[in-house]
Amino acid sequence: MAKATLTISSKTYSAWSLRGWLLTQLAGLEVDEQRVENDAADRAELLLLSPSVLVPRLTHEGASVWDTLAIAEYLNELYPDAQMLPADRIARAHCRSISGEIHSGFTNLRSALPMNLKVRHEKFPVFSGARPDIERIEVIWQECLGKYGGPFLFGAAPTIADAMYAPVTTRFLTYAVGLSAPSAAYCQTIAAWGPMIQWREAALAEAEEIEDLDVEF
Amino acid sequence: MAKATLTISSKTYSAWSLRGWLLTQLAGLEVDEQRVENDAADRAELLLLSPSVLVPRLTHEGASVWDTLAIAEYLNELYPDAQMLPADRIARAHCRSISGEIHSGFTNLRSALPMNLKVRHEKFPVFSGARPDIERIEVIWQECLGKYGGPFLFGAAPTIADAMYAPVTTRFLTYAVGLSAPSAAYCQTIAAWGPMIQWREAALAEAEEIEDLDVEF
Repeated sequence: MAKATLTISSKTYSAWSLRGWLLTQLAGLEVDEQRVENDAADRAELLLLSPSVLVPRLTHEGASVWDTLAIAEYLNELYPDAQMLPADRIARAHCRSISGEIHSGFTNLRSALPMNLKVRHEKFPVFSGARPDIERIEVIWQECLGKYGGPFLFGAAPTIADAMYAPVTTRFLTYAVGLSAPSAAYCQTIAAWGPMIQWREAALAEAEEIEDLDVEF
Repeated sequence: MAKATLTISSKTYSAWSLRGWLLTQLAGLEVDEQRVENDAADRAELLLLSPSVLVPRLTHEGASVWDTLAIAEYLNELYPDAQMLPADRIARAHCRSISGEIHSGFTNLRSALPMNLKVRHEKFPVFSGARPDIERIEVIWQECLGKYGGPFLFGAAPTIADAMYAPVTTRFLTYAVGLSAPSAAYCQTIAAWGPMIQWREAALAEAEEIEDLDVEF
């Protein structure tokens, strides 16, 4: 049987690629990575801020699945033993709700603080329009960490929601965004999560580099 | 057992409320409607273009589910007999992919052509930035209608994807957007779909009316 393929773009800059890849890791599905051109996908994602139809895309046994949440549900259906979603119905609804919320929202955050795994800013002027997004994300995280006990959003093991919010944790670290203690601890949990380490190391090893975005304030 | 509640805002203007409600109809779940203030939700949706945390929200047997796709998956899990998704694995992946795509994308279309069930324009200057969105939607629809035979996107019966694209069909009718014959026929299919008729009649009966948006060209 042909191996599954995951189409991604830059490991440094593409938040949606990272999400898609983390989902395959949660599912335990081995994939061949296929890269699309940076110009086509990264810039589209960075500048237009909308998930591309190009990445991530999972090709698996005749199915072509694009869109990150579609990949999540596809894999969850195929690999129920991977427990990509909480077992409890109410917690599962909660997990899907916050995953959906980041899927369609937080555009100010995305534009003000683009993912960039190669850079650490000591101080960075955060666009004020992104503040409500940051505050909402802190509420989401603290509700989950309080209710399910951490260290991941829904308890001891990572779920789809952690894959969805992982790029946000990297942004908070990249731009040194001041956070409450529980949120800061959560960012560290994700930074120390095996698949995240693996992805980040691959990103740092990437030769290509695009110009820092001109973010206007 | 307490009846389920669906929190919505305006039936005339709120595309996300419409989607949530169509999903409950697909599932066959009877809900009590709860309305939030227009100012809070409609304007947020119209002006910020991001789905609110407020609407739609499904409250059902201890679960609080917000975000439209989360509601879709929640209901699909609870009511498998309702066949809200195609039975075939590959078609199901396709259905989820295009549902995810509209969930997170098409922001230019949303801002240029806001949903308004009370108005019909004979001629309307479509913002050129919305053109690629319209073209992409036509591609999505024609691929589905061609592959699964119509009249709904995945064949004889409506699925989650039809609920997700239903507001777009109303926008195309409201603003008299020129479409290919298959796309135009699909808009008519949705317009004649029972739950859509029911919603539209309720919208037309709504007393409240907000000012036409100032759309700049």
